[in-house]
Amino acid sequence: MLIVMKTDATEDEIAEVVRVVAEMNLQADALPGAQRTAIAVTGNTAPVDASRFEHLPGVAETIRVTRPLKLTTLDLHPTKTVVRVGDATIGGDELAIIGGPCAVESHAQAFAIAETVRRSGARFFRGGAFKPRTSPYAFQGLGEQGLKILAEVRESYGLKIVTEAIDEWALDLVEKYGDVIQIGARNMQNFSLLKRAGRASLPVLLKRGMAATLDEWLLAAEYIMAEGNNQIVLCERGIRTFSQHTRNTLDLAVIPALGRLSHLPVIVDPSHGTGKSYMVAPLARAAAAAGADGLMIEVHDQPERALSDGAQALTLQQYEQTVAEARSIHEVLAATLPVG
Amino acid sequence: MLIVMKTDATEDEIAEVVRVVAEMNLQADALPGAQRTAIAVTGNTAPVDASRFEHLPGVAETIRVTRPLKLTTLDLHPTKTVVRVGDATIGGDELAIIGGPCAVESHAQAFAIAETVRRSGARFFRGGAFKPRTSPYAFQGLGEQGLKILAEVRESYGLKIVTEAIDEWALDLVEKYGDVIQIGARNMQNFSLLKRAGRASLPVLLKRGMAATLDEWLLAAEYIMAEGNNQIVLCERGIRTFSQHTRNTLDLAVIPALGRLSHLPVIVDPSHGTGKSYMVAPLARAAAAAGADGLMIEVHDQPERALSDGAQALTLQQYEQTVAEARSIHEVLAATLPVG
Amino acid sequence: MLIVMKTDATEDEIAEVVRVVAEMNLQADALPGAQRTAIAVTGNTAPVDASRFEHLPGVAETIRVTRPLKLTTLDLHPTKTVVRVGDATIGGDELAIIGGPCAVESHAQAFAIAETVRRSGARFFRGGAFKPRTSPYAFQGLGEQGLKILAEVRESYGLKIVTEAIDEWALDLVEKYGDVIQIGARNMQNFSLLKRAGRASLPVLLKRGMAATLDEWLLAAEYIMAEGNNQIVLCERGIRTFSQHTRNTLDLAVIPALGRLSHLPVIVDPSHGTGKSYMVAPLARAAAAAGADGLMIEVHDQPERALSDGAQALTLQQYEQTVAEARSIHEVLAATLPVG
Amino acid sequence: MLIVMKTDATEDEIAEVVRVVAEMNLQADALPGAQRTAIAVTGNTAPVDASRFEHLPGVAETIRVTRPLKLTTLDLHPTKTVVRVGDATIGGDELAIIGGPCAVESHAQAFAIAETVRRSGARFFRGGAFKPRTSPYAFQGLGEQGLKILAEVRESYGLKIVTEAIDEWALDLVEKYGDVIQIGARNMQNFSLLKRAGRASLPVLLKRGMAATLDEWLLAAEYIMAEGNNQIVLCERGIRTFSQHTRNTLDLAVIPALGRLSHLPVIVDPSHGTGKSYMVAPLARAAAAAGADGLMIEVHDQPERALSDGAQALTLQQYEQTVAEARSIHEVLAATLPVG
Repeated sequence: MLIVMKTDATEDEIAEVVRVVAEMNLQADALPGAQRTAIAVTGNTAPVDASRFEHLPGVAETIRVTRPLKLTTLDLHPTKTVVRVGDATIGGDELAIIGGPCAVESHAQAFAIAETVRRSGARFFRGGAFKPRTSPYAFQGLGEQGLKILAEVRESYGLKIVTEAIDEWALDLVEKYGDVIQIGARNMQNFSLLKRAGRASLPVLLKRGMAATLDEWLLAAEYIMAEGNNQIVLCERGIRTFSQHTRNTLDLAVIPALGRLSHLPVIVDPSHGTGKSYMVAPLARAAAAAGADGLMIEVHDQPERALSDGAQALTLQQYEQTVAEARSIHEVLAATLPVG
Repeated sequence: MLIVMKTDATEDEIAEVVRVVAEMNLQADALPGAQRTAIAVTGNTAPVDASRFEHLPGVAETIRVTRPLKLTTLDLHPTKTVVRVGDATIGGDELAIIGGPCAVESHAQAFAIAETVRRSGARFFRGGAFKPRTSPYAFQGLGEQGLKILAEVRESYGLKIVTEAIDEWALDLVEKYGDVIQIGARNMQNFSLLKRAGRASLPVLLKRGMAATLDEWLLAAEYIMAEGNNQIVLCERGIRTFSQHTRNTLDLAVIPALGRLSHLPVIVDPSHGTGKSYMVAPLARAAAAAGADGLMIEVHDQPERALSDGAQALTLQQYEQTVAEARSIHEVLAATLPVG
Repeated sequence: MLIVMKTDATEDEIAEVVRVVAEMNLQADALPGAQRTAIAVTGNTAPVDASRFEHLPGVAETIRVTRPLKLTTLDLHPTKTVVRVGDATIGGDELAIIGGPCAVESHAQAFAIAETVRRSGARFFRGGAFKPRTSPYAFQGLGEQGLKILAEVRESYGLKIVTEAIDEWALDLVEKYGDVIQIGARNMQNFSLLKRAGRASLPVLLKRGMAATLDEWLLAAEYIMAEGNNQIVLCERGIRTFSQHTRNTLDLAVIPALGRLSHLPVIVDPSHGTGKSYMVAPLARAAAAAGADGLMIEVHDQPERALSDGAQALTLQQYEQTVAEARSIHEVLAATLPVG
Repeated sequence: MLIVMKTDATEDEIAEVVRVVAEMNLQADALPGAQRTAIAVTGNTAPVDASRFEHLPGVAETIRVTRPLKLTTLDLHPTKTVVRVGDATIGGDELAIIGGPCAVESHAQAFAIAETVRRSGARFFRGGAFKPRTSPYAFQGLGEQGLKILAEVRESYGLKIVTEAIDEWALDLVEKYGDVIQIGARNMQNFSLLKRAGRASLPVLLKRGMAATLDEWLLAAEYIMAEGNNQIVLCERGIRTFSQHTRNTLDLAVIPALGRLSHLPVIVDPSHGTGKSYMVAPLARAAAAAGADGLMIEVHDQPERALSDGAQALTLQQYEQTVAEARSIHEVLAATLPVG
């Protein structure tokens, strides 16, 4: 931490800050500048609490230097994590594709879609059984019945099931029927649920909260890792901004940013990231081009009759075309880039 | 809903939209304009799902008219709700004051602060026993032990206890020891927790999520009301914006906006809303001036040693001064305004 | 500046950074920490350019310490600026009131409104002759004809004229007819216009840009001051956020924030800050309560026929009531607060 | 426009709204719904002013239907615009590349960079002679001297010159020395400058303002087109959001959104859009994959010594690699997509 003193801070005020730092068993170095003195605090292994200093006389501001991250960083884990789900992987050479409807609505719907998802070469099937809906009057999902349908999809098509747990009770069920536990954007800082996911036997797909900074997102992943589960996939799904031509603003710069900072794989959800079906293909291609490890794409056999989020669902045909385009871009990248 | 057709939409495309509306047992009125035709959909009692139309040929966009709200609006409940906690109220004539530390840290700390809170005339004491912390490595609260201390504060000082439930298990305990269940900003869309709060025997203080629109916030309250609990206080605590001179941007315009729309009382938390202790007094006054029903203010006997959020905590003396200032403004309002 | 090295930075990389700092005639102090080394750069009188370091091997990030501000800060000018316009002031003990229509539309309109503005006790009259409209097809103002009407208002009512200059040519005219030059939000970073305003003979009212940080806003004021004009009033008018229940989100925390940082007076425009007439009174009161030096309020004799921004204009009666309420709150503050 | 009445609006209030619409020579259709009546206003050729209605008794809200756009839309101009600069184009089949330094610093610097830009196959050279800098104390550009250097670059390398005009005086000079007039993000709503650009003899590259909606951006283009200049290139350069891991948040969804709405070509500036050199290549690829018509990329022969924005400048070698990667993705698109 750097403690910046006011320009008119007295010697005594500086001395007092240095004294408090020493009291915390840390080291203080006063750095007199042309305009003001800054005091560097070192020796800490975790972020220093700024509150101790912001109330002291003569202190103008404190500047955090130590990032609060541990387990998710490349510092401690310099090799990229490859999340393995049976023989399928996320974070390896292949572009992982997770396709499926927003919500499981019926056996017929799930199977009609799964047929296409498998044919597209995807290894993962998505579909919500518990839907976190903004309105209590909207369709809330089929619950355990939906999970059973998903388990049948796995049985019939060999697709790995990615499905959301909205609370600890649902997580128990997802562990029973699914392959990857999805934590949704609205629950990214549901810390009790994160801790439970950290004790789960399955990998976790952690969506970014719609107002989450990179550090907050990674700290949510730290909650999971701190409990022992290090099979985590990060999923960018757009953030909330003033921009209203999309449902969310897809922030693809997180891909290189996370690549510098963390060993965890990153995928992108262009369906929620735009909220409009005609934008899904271009943004799916963009995500692949930016180096995403995978894509999560919503597809429906009858989008105009979807029980949730139909406006962003691709038709079966659009889905196949989108996956093909994203794949061809991923291949160019693999061929062009030094490190793939 | 209004369905706006493209300028070059054909008669057949318009007819098809009208047909689909009729299929949904709703009424369609085609309104030919100078540039394009719009089709008004009426007869619905809940918002119409736009997905049915956005995929039809010739449709340019759909515009929602029906708000998705029911129970929280003045339409159905034209009298303002007064939340009663024993003999204390929120939403009545008095400016409700909720004072206390961010987190309960010890018996001594809680009692030192409660002494001042009571002397200030406040009727409510706040203090977290379960803290939703961004980092897993930060102090997570004393848990049930903290709740017991809070119950002793009530016993000794007659203050009503407002304390956060971060999950269903914690809510059970808050129901046992507390007086008002706080749902934090990060859990505003934790729908399972909202439903549980809707079945609770205590009033709920529902904080606005940091990226929540007004409708989303009210829909969160609808989740609680739909389960039968209509004792809800809304709490503005700042939203996330590009602006970095405060921890959050306090959005005081929600006070008149909600006053027009909803019968629920609205209070303001200038501590989280700014994140800086020197801003709490001016923004507390501003909230009172804008017509808030109450204030939630963090105070600590030793802010520089607080285990969480010390940078925004007032000293005991600052707290008393702030409450007095806010009260004097509330009194001016009561005397000046037609309706108080 | 603080240069934070990567955890695996070598001794040679650290030495190279120190060498480059020395080459810039600044001082470098390497501060070895538990996880990584930070290098403090001191001796600079202006912000150090981070680019020199971000490309060097081993550097993780750079953290700016020196604020880029000079003339607007309390550091160099510890006394608050009182802007004087004849015998009227902004920044003194009184709450300055600037009332008037969004745009001057006619002699009759301006005079009908000015009558009320004077009666309310305001000393300043606002009204646009050059309107920066989002659409080229919207009313663009009466131009010089509008300025002449404003000059007549001054003549007849003794009100000081605050009016916007949208370009250098318009600024010449505003200097001829007006009393205070308004620089609008959209021009806050029109640096040529700022420089011209800095050479003007009149005070400048500088609105905050809708996406401007505090530093950017103050740097815009520095552009004006650097040319010799130090009669500047800052005007908060709301920022752009995801929140859609208001036209902009009024950020009242700038009042205490600027009070700590700068000597310039700060006023608030609750009309643009909300965009809805029914919100103007509560937010005007809130601004006064937060310690604003003044208010700029739009009023129209026939809001429903206003040629621009009618939705946010108060009626004459609402305006008088709003000014009275804000004043009574300002008086409470003056009586209550140690420093008024 | 749709005027939504309150649930308790009376027949008289509805009749009065209908009467006012008729007074404006427009048609009103009252549409009684289950909860409330909506009144559809048709017959208008431009957006209807909502102010006329928002003040009437019984009105709950107004909903705009007509977009305020005319000249920039596909409605009136269904063929995509190809901007021609001599034999080079933007908006055609090729991915247009605009490379060069943030600011022209010297003849040697410009030529060293131009050498690489030409070798990369780019047809356009960028470089600022007038720099809109946030701080008045930062390098402001070489002015006309810089433009002369740019003209020499064109002479020597055959590259078309894209350079920014920050005011009308500078625009005169850019017209004299350059090939494409850049209007920067901070001037997107400098309407006087836009009108002047509309009367210029050169094409205009219009950057998106950092808080501009799509409609505001297109309306800025309408200002230019309304004066007679229809050679306009839109340039996405990132918007301001809460997200702080990049300088701006690049909003690539504007590419499909504009493709549906407007005939104008769209390019992307990943340098300002991220502010970090290591992110430029992935986001340049992403922009190409999303279907951008071109890229504007900052490159410097010595980024660590750049006089402005060095942190986001690519080295010569990185630049060549980035252009190659983006091109190869553009080629995949051309081969894969139905319409290229």
